[in-house]
Amino acid sequence: MKDMAEAGQLIDSLGKAARAAAVELAQAPSAAKSLALNAAADAVLARSDDILAANAKDLDFARQKGLSDAMLDRLRLDGDRLSGIAKGLREVADQPDPVGQVITEWDRPTGLHIQRVRTPIGVIGVIYESRPNVTADAGALALKSGNAVILRGGSESLHSAGAIHACMVEGLRTAGLPEAAIQMVPTRDRAAVSAMLGAQGLIDVIIPRGGKGLVGLVQSEARVPVFAHLEGICHVYADGAADLAKARRVVLNAKTRRTGICGAAECLLIDREFLARHGDVLIRDLLEAGVEVRADGELANVSGTTRATPEDFGHEFLDMIIAAKLVDGVEGAIAHIRTHGSQHTESILTEDDATAARFFAALDSAILMRNASTQFADGGEFGMGAEIGIATGKLHARGPVGAEQLTSFKYLVTGDGTIRA
Amino acid sequence: MKDMAEAGQLIDSLGKAARAAAVELAQAPSAAKSLALNAAADAVLARSDDILAANAKDLDFARQKGLSDAMLDRLRLDGDRLSGIAKGLREVADQPDPVGQVITEWDRPTGLHIQRVRTPIGVIGVIYESRPNVTADAGALALKSGNAVILRGGSESLHSAGAIHACMVEGLRTAGLPEAAIQMVPTRDRAAVSAMLGAQGLIDVIIPRGGKGLVGLVQSEARVPVFAHLEGICHVYADGAADLAKARRVVLNAKTRRTGICGAAECLLIDREFLARHGDVLIRDLLEAGVEVRADGELANVSGTTRATPEDFGHEFLDMIIAAKLVDGVEGAIAHIRTHGSQHTESILTEDDATAARFFAALDSAILMRNASTQFADGGEFGMGAEIGIATGKLHARGPVGAEQLTSFKYLVTGDGTIRA
Repeated sequence: MKDMAEAGQLIDSLGKAARAAAVELAQAPSAAKSLALNAAADAVLARSDDILAANAKDLDFARQKGLSDAMLDRLRLDGDRLSGIAKGLREVADQPDPVGQVITEWDRPTGLHIQRVRTPIGVIGVIYESRPNVTADAGALALKSGNAVILRGGSESLHSAGAIHACMVEGLRTAGLPEAAIQMVPTRDRAAVSAMLGAQGLIDVIIPRGGKGLVGLVQSEARVPVFAHLEGICHVYADGAADLAKARRVVLNAKTRRTGICGAAECLLIDREFLARHGDVLIRDLLEAGVEVRADGELANVSGTTRATPEDFGHEFLDMIIAAKLVDGVEGAIAHIRTHGSQHTESILTEDDATAARFFAALDSAILMRNASTQFADGGEFGMGAEIGIATGKLHARGPVGAEQLTSFKYLVTGDGTIRA
Repeated sequence: MKDMAEAGQLIDSLGKAARAAAVELAQAPSAAKSLALNAAADAVLARSDDILAANAKDLDFARQKGLSDAMLDRLRLDGDRLSGIAKGLREVADQPDPVGQVITEWDRPTGLHIQRVRTPIGVIGVIYESRPNVTADAGALALKSGNAVILRGGSESLHSAGAIHACMVEGLRTAGLPEAAIQMVPTRDRAAVSAMLGAQGLIDVIIPRGGKGLVGLVQSEARVPVFAHLEGICHVYADGAADLAKARRVVLNAKTRRTGICGAAECLLIDREFLARHGDVLIRDLLEAGVEVRADGELANVSGTTRATPEDFGHEFLDMIIAAKLVDGVEGAIAHIRTHGSQHTESILTEDDATAARFFAALDSAILMRNASTQFADGGEFGMGAEIGIATGKLHARGPVGAEQLTSFKYLVTGDGTIRA
């Protein structure tokens, strides 16, 4: 209880400072925000020795805690990764500023002119795990969109994230922006996470960056709205009217390009007509590429596959494993995806326009694709610049969440002494 | 506990039926939705005797409960009001269908074509008080935007709302749409409201329609997102550079056109320069119109005013009462509104473009106006057609909430066997 009270006070004080900073940020000129981001990039390069020393401390601590090699890799910084962080900051600096953009405008018969104009949301909370670069990425996108941000990194990355955060603050200082625009929760105490999740009125939205465990915890506990996806159970459906060469190319890419990202395909649905026409070539391609294929029904007769269990469908492997199943046409695929999907990204392979239109209309995932790899589910690939994550909720933000989706809007109405009848 | 368990089961069963209906509705043709709304309008007129008989039952019950005259008036239906309900249904039928609209689209260097397309949100819960017409208004807007809706009317209007609901269901049946598209909670039990507020996964958003008591309860208890405004504490600021004739016209209209709506002005801020130039004319206009002016500082010297207490600022009177205060220019007005406003609607009266721009930039109310009456804060006046209410939150919906803001979106991505490098 003492912990919770202390954490509550801490988040209250960070939240109030953020709220005050947000008022200033909402009116900050684009040039000042870009200057802050470029100056932060300079600072990351200038202070790389400090950052790497901080990172070494974190790595020691993580090894003592017995973290896995994969976790240690996510935590590790080096010269290349720091260059990448600096480059990312400069790219966000160069993106267009969404704040103040006129989304739409129109005139009314009363003589009123109405504009709908982008504004920042206010205060964003970001809760992440061991990747220290999220400190810079999330801080940059929040600043670009005129929001104050409270960052709560994983306990393993406390020193590394702190050193990067110091660079962000140096950037803010250089540009004359309030330092409370980008704050870090300065404690390993888990109670601070709970306090953030309940900080209604101080934090407007929470964005969790990390695995299913973290996202699930945030989604179930939060009283503050959350932008997130719990899982990316992406499906590829090879329709009977698919072009074989395109289908082979896309299926392999969707599964194997990178297996650990949320846009990686986890389930291949094959139309019985496709099988009749082309045989088991898609399964064999995957097996040859070293993918473990967990096959259902007669597909399990293909040599080299393993037999799927019911749990393999609707499962996010994030590995060189894919579930595979025969379905009866696009309706079979739609029914399967509705039952087992996570509303993230699904792709149909077909040359038939009506079939593609049916797939697009009947499903309601954040992203639906035709003849394209699910690995394109990414803000950069969408042309949005950097993204803070991919959301599968239906309110406010959906799909890749970039600077624009971190904004709200207000109406500006101009009359000439206009009164309502 | 028994009540809560029963209410939970009830909402669970309504929610599941709504969820199933929502899948069908999301793909329903515009013509079917319009047909359902026009048929419902026909039914309201054809069954007006039944509806008025049901309303008479509710009025008897309400009188026994000792409801105020104002409450009885809100509850009362007559021929005119039923015609108004039918007309409203036909107007929504004629509005453009937001579902399937391409919000924006673009091409990527990879060859991908990306469309952002409007989709329904899913299931909407509407919790309202004694006005039985909300049954038709909310049902119509939800249907137009392809959402299923669960309506929970006030216990006083149970029979009237039920009779109108029967007309909506008849419309759905005529159009071959699922009857569960528009459901009513068939009980006076308050536990049903709590169950709706906690129905995450079944209800996507809750919209409360009613007074501050209802909205406050919903906002504090809900685990489901809420579109609402708690109060409309609208300010009018008369700047030193205001045009006198426009200012007099707008101030009177903003306060007195209708005092009971959320867009009615509750506080008049007068620039000291305006007072020096034009005297106390705005105050005298209000007094002459029969408004009680609760004046602060030297404004209280104007004969006929009463002296304001601190509680009069930031107060929603919804009556022929206004608080009035002198401020030092636009910065004084901004500071006052930031402290006392409810982020609903504020209007500046000025001929100076820079001053107006400052007011527009520094405040973040859902609606900011220049030289126009705050009474224009209304979906119809904005040209959005019918509205389900006005929201002051910053996520998803803001300002007047019409059919368009009851939608979400998805991305449709088309390639040609396109894979990610």
